[in-house]
Amino acid sequence: MRVLVAGGDGFCGWPTALHLSANGHEVAIVDNLARRAIDEELGTDSLTPIASLQARVERWRQLSGREIDLEQGDLGDPQLVHDLFTELRPEAVVHFAEQRSAPYSMIGRQHAVCTQVGNVVGTLNLLFAMHELAPSCHLVKLGTMGEYGTPNIDIEEGYIEIEHNGRSDVLPYPKQPGSFYHLSKVHDSHNIFFACRTWGLRATDLNQGIVYNVQTQQTRSDPTLLNRFDYDAVFGTAINRFCVQAAAGVPLTVYGEGGQTRGFIDLRDTVRCIELAIETPPPAGQMRVMNQFTEQWSVMQLAQIVYEVAQEMELSPSIENIDNPRVELEDHYYHAKCSKLIDLGLQPHLLGRETIASLLDEAVRHRDRARLQTVLPEANWRSVPYWGSEPAIARDAALQSAAARSNSPASM
Amino acid sequence: MRVLVAGGDGFCGWPTALHLSANGHEVAIVDNLARRAIDEELGTDSLTPIASLQARVERWRQLSGREIDLEQGDLGDPQLVHDLFTELRPEAVVHFAEQRSAPYSMIGRQHAVCTQVGNVVGTLNLLFAMHELAPSCHLVKLGTMGEYGTPNIDIEEGYIEIEHNGRSDVLPYPKQPGSFYHLSKVHDSHNIFFACRTWGLRATDLNQGIVYNVQTQQTRSDPTLLNRFDYDAVFGTAINRFCVQAAAGVPLTVYGEGGQTRGFIDLRDTVRCIELAIETPPPAGQMRVMNQFTEQWSVMQLAQIVYEVAQEMELSPSIENIDNPRVELEDHYYHAKCSKLIDLGLQPHLLGRETIASLLDEAVRHRDRARLQTVLPEANWRSVPYWGSEPAIARDAALQSAAARSNSPASM
Repeated sequence: MRVLVAGGDGFCGWPTALHLSANGHEVAIVDNLARRAIDEELGTDSLTPIASLQARVERWRQLSGREIDLEQGDLGDPQLVHDLFTELRPEAVVHFAEQRSAPYSMIGRQHAVCTQVGNVVGTLNLLFAMHELAPSCHLVKLGTMGEYGTPNIDIEEGYIEIEHNGRSDVLPYPKQPGSFYHLSKVHDSHNIFFACRTWGLRATDLNQGIVYNVQTQQTRSDPTLLNRFDYDAVFGTAINRFCVQAAAGVPLTVYGEGGQTRGFIDLRDTVRCIELAIETPPPAGQMRVMNQFTEQWSVMQLAQIVYEVAQEMELSPSIENIDNPRVELEDHYYHAKCSKLIDLGLQPHLLGRETIASLLDEAVRHRDRARLQTVLPEANWRSVPYWGSEPAIARDAALQSAAARSNSPASM
Repeated sequence: MRVLVAGGDGFCGWPTALHLSANGHEVAIVDNLARRAIDEELGTDSLTPIASLQARVERWRQLSGREIDLEQGDLGDPQLVHDLFTELRPEAVVHFAEQRSAPYSMIGRQHAVCTQVGNVVGTLNLLFAMHELAPSCHLVKLGTMGEYGTPNIDIEEGYIEIEHNGRSDVLPYPKQPGSFYHLSKVHDSHNIFFACRTWGLRATDLNQGIVYNVQTQQTRSDPTLLNRFDYDAVFGTAINRFCVQAAAGVPLTVYGEGGQTRGFIDLRDTVRCIELAIETPPPAGQMRVMNQFTEQWSVMQLAQIVYEVAQEMELSPSIENIDNPRVELEDHYYHAKCSKLIDLGLQPHLLGRETIASLLDEAVRHRDRARLQTVLPEANWRSVPYWGSEPAIARDAALQSAAARSNSPASM
């Protein structure tokens, strides 16, 4: 199948592109390299040394004999998106090309605006291009389990049957996202659902849990293919960050009491889920929603597992509870469904000591590269400044100039 | 109370500003004059001749002795929004400053992008300014009944108690909006709800029905204060448009069979609802949601009422069913709650023959100004072009330039 992987240079996008290529799909990548630009902005870096996207793709060609097409550009650019559809004629688009960090979206107003505008407009451009140029193309869109928040009832996969005053209907599951980033994904989901209902497009909205682990079979097969290993407070996810902290000999920092329960998934399952999704497109007009995680854990449980494995490896770990920078419940009901991907054939890699040990091994191997000053949280949900530093992809100044231009034709 | 009316030059904003000023509030208006610029773009015009915003405000000062502060600018401009809060120190912000036409948002991709970016970013800037500069200010935000779509269960006011698998919770009511415009309001609602939960802000989200009638006590008191009377396919709402068609001697155009049922409200009730909302702010941390309409009607019922009154006025009306340009159910369950504003003291002007007759009178008085070629729909929900004419407030080109800049710092 001809598959366009948007955001194919990123933490999930790159291993997915390789996995799909290895499994016989014709893969093209479009990426604006925003994730690398944001590292420059924040002074952060991948723990693993990562090659340029061009070098990655060239090395993959040498090793596998398989080509991956490359386009550098931003989905906010309508000409680029139009060209992608007319030139590549994708049968599926896997859309990772969004700013994916909740803390990044909470750095300040400009970061929130940049996250919502960038994510929403990129997805709108894809939907309009599909509508006009590729109505049977399948959009596989990454959402997040964080869209649901922590309701006091079971979380279903995208829709819920509601009985009310003697009538019933199946409606979109109510969302209570917890950051401007999570909100952008909710906006996307509403836009996609509308496009499917109105234009007969087909889409799969994957509400992904928190991804842990760093390498897949393909990315570990050669140093040039290595995936990025984020461990900073902005882009590092809980387990990966704990492993780097343990390897570096600093405390594992748990936000608050660590009672927050979430869905988690191994990166090796992420790439398999994408493959399962593209191989089973929903019918025209349907936005299928699947919850893409395999296990629920509380943050403190995860810290304890990492602590134990690190102790066995003689790393002398410690755990420290720090003030929670987020506004979230730390003691709450949480029961989310995740059976649709299993029904499609997913065989989960459940979290085990071997995975933690391999992550700790990798963290130890590269620990001289760790920038420990980037690990403690700076963004605070309770106080998000109006002014501040300019995001790497500044859409704010651009909007101001558009607003200024808009005033000229009107007469007072 | 010091009240900032954002979008105070528009169809609802202008009469609201006058009503609040007449009732003793200190009113300031901010408006980017986008509605007038869009008339230039589309070749449309108000049926009534309307004065410039400066002339309106000056005339109001002469007649009433009351000042209304004026700021021309766009809420997408963060410096302007910051200045508004530091200089005016509003205790309430009434936020009409959004692109409010569903058909406009369906003209093409650029119009959809411009609608969503403009609406969402303006509201984000307000929320961030309140968070930093005016945490006890009350945001009164105009949403729309169209956010709910037409579910097969009763529509509640913003939230619904859901029992599921033996547990229950009160959650945001699921939304199924029917255009990119309606979607922008759903995005706003999610952003506002988050800001209230996370920052302790207070807001009222008013899901307004379709507004009919054109003048209020204040706007009809002087020709310079006249409100705009939209009747074109893009900005004219059903009853107002039917009245102009009857006055001009062309058929009343009903989309499809006209079975679509919606909530409606008289403009005189709109201004009163806003007054009631600002006078009863919700507690900090709460987003109160009220459905702002007073009656349900089907489109065909309304056409028939206008037809009958027009006949009595010897206008020889006719009704024509035309292809529905929208994708919507024409035969559906619809039962929406609207008791909260009544509980606050709203005494509705229910739709009667006198109101229709006064609208027909006004339409006849100005019928030589009617541009009848603008009355038939052009935007078609089923086919929305990727390329097309540039919207009056083009945020698309601005985003492209931001995207282009974003590529420079990154290395491949």
